[in-house]
Amino acid sequence: MKTRRVALAKRPDGEPREDDFALVEDDLPDPGPGEVLVRATLLSVDPYQRGRMSETRSYARSLELGDTITSQTLGEVVESNNPRLAPGDVVVGQLGWTEYAVVPGHQVRRVPDGIPPAAALHVLGTTGLTAYFGLLDVGKPKPGDTVVVSGAAGAVGQLVGQIAKLMGCRTVGIAGRPGKVRDLTEAYGYDAGIDYKREDVKATLKEACPDGVDVYFDNVGGEITDLVLARLALHARVVVCGQISQYNNREPQLGPRNLGLLIVHRARMEGFLVVDYAHRYDEALQRLGRWVLEGKLHYTEHVTEGIENAPRAFIGMLRGENRGKTLVRLPE
Amino acid sequence: MKTRRVALAKRPDGEPREDDFALVEDDLPDPGPGEVLVRATLLSVDPYQRGRMSETRSYARSLELGDTITSQTLGEVVESNNPRLAPGDVVVGQLGWTEYAVVPGHQVRRVPDGIPPAAALHVLGTTGLTAYFGLLDVGKPKPGDTVVVSGAAGAVGQLVGQIAKLMGCRTVGIAGRPGKVRDLTEAYGYDAGIDYKREDVKATLKEACPDGVDVYFDNVGGEITDLVLARLALHARVVVCGQISQYNNREPQLGPRNLGLLIVHRARMEGFLVVDYAHRYDEALQRLGRWVLEGKLHYTEHVTEGIENAPRAFIGMLRGENRGKTLVRLPE
Repeated sequence: MKTRRVALAKRPDGEPREDDFALVEDDLPDPGPGEVLVRATLLSVDPYQRGRMSETRSYARSLELGDTITSQTLGEVVESNNPRLAPGDVVVGQLGWTEYAVVPGHQVRRVPDGIPPAAALHVLGTTGLTAYFGLLDVGKPKPGDTVVVSGAAGAVGQLVGQIAKLMGCRTVGIAGRPGKVRDLTEAYGYDAGIDYKREDVKATLKEACPDGVDVYFDNVGGEITDLVLARLALHARVVVCGQISQYNNREPQLGPRNLGLLIVHRARMEGFLVVDYAHRYDEALQRLGRWVLEGKLHYTEHVTEGIENAPRAFIGMLRGENRGKTLVRLPE
Repeated sequence: MKTRRVALAKRPDGEPREDDFALVEDDLPDPGPGEVLVRATLLSVDPYQRGRMSETRSYARSLELGDTITSQTLGEVVESNNPRLAPGDVVVGQLGWTEYAVVPGHQVRRVPDGIPPAAALHVLGTTGLTAYFGLLDVGKPKPGDTVVVSGAAGAVGQLVGQIAKLMGCRTVGIAGRPGKVRDLTEAYGYDAGIDYKREDVKATLKEACPDGVDVYFDNVGGEITDLVLARLALHARVVVCGQISQYNNREPQLGPRNLGLLIVHRARMEGFLVVDYAHRYDEALQRLGRWVLEGKLHYTEHVTEGIENAPRAFIGMLRGENRGKTLVRLPE
């Protein structure tokens, strides 16, 4: 049995290019005892993957050249030697960008009935959990707080704004293209949307947050973050979720040394990884699932067709071309 | 009755110069009802005063030209129209750099018997409280943690290292002159001292903190902070107390955008001001006082004589020329 997978061909130098990736055909073994053969139907595309492509030490090991690009993958069990799983089961797991995979059954989990399967890759998966724990546990929003989100129309951002509204906060989203900025208020209920490419962010931020920013959920870093930090309210909380503006830099970008603002505003800035909350995933997924079923949590999927287009989808996401969660669909 | 006081003559442009200050002679009114006349004996010299000299918005209002330089002052009551205070009482209050002051009695407090009066300006005053709440409440050190302190031989830093040792931590201090670096291990019990002017901080830090930095108490900011952030341990806490390396900058200095490190290390960085802990000062002063009496908390005073030399003492402190707490003594 053959499979095609997307492998790391070269380490990207700055912005990734399509030829940093290679579509490779491999032979797959038959599933051994306890193993399953899974056919992938949807691949997840996420900013964190950029980090794995570099050699720099980070929280997870780097990919080696030739390795399959790491990702969450949705699929269907085709063959099973595992009593817990049967052909036809819809499963999700860290299978990477591949058409088929043979893995031990415990490395995938069944997608519960009653939810749209794709949701297991975002709102009811790592993306949703990231928004949930980052906002609620790190940001600790209180009713009436002003919550600002950067990358606000991205996979995580679209959910953060809505969860903050559910908590009784005022929400201000920052995004970078007219369509996405429109989505902020029209699709995700942000009280105000800021287009950082066309507006004077400093001035619009001041207008949108007259009493300062109580919680800043940061997906992007860089200049936008500098401007938000200058408008923090007293005892503000800054959730450092991502720094997508920095991921393609060859050398660290320079910015103003502004940690003194944390003293002025007695503010807290905290980085987090969702995996540290694994013991509380069930609680969060139940709550997120209820919000989705009750129509309180909307999401947009940005779908590209075909595994061969996964690198292009990834490059586009890093450029901010996606609206919502970036996914790659594989044909039946 | 005449007094001399140090007033702000010009706003410093970069590093303060002596002619940014003026020694002014004023007439003092007689104390009115409830007021006291205080003769100053010791003036406090602190980095935060630099911020008050600028027009930039901060947590406290800026000085106007001609205003007396803000400071904590130790003094003796000379005349009293306040039933709570009698001539001869030793008091401390926010009187500024002045020889005499007439103030409402409630604006000064008596220094308790049994402590060295000067201590009310540092270890048993705002300086000690800053070290105490910053380290314990913001940094939350656990026994066995590695605690790194920048500006470690300064007024606050000398205390932070010792309190951290009392909590069972390993301590590493960073300072900038040989005498101060020697003090770190010999006077303040640091397990290791780093001379940032003569050593390769990155390499010595790696050697001194093989398992990373659990708590970083930052008094200085800038490049030293960049290097420490790169060595944080998982779930590290960064206490942003001061950024003295930045206070004289005309424009914000540029440094690497490194907030991504907070994600990698799941670290928390928090700015604080001691005034937010006013409701717990009594508890902290009792504990600090006990440590001083038991000989567990040592401190160095860096004393300059004469109010006319207060500006020079201040400028020297910003350059790191002080060892321990900077004070100005006024003659009897």
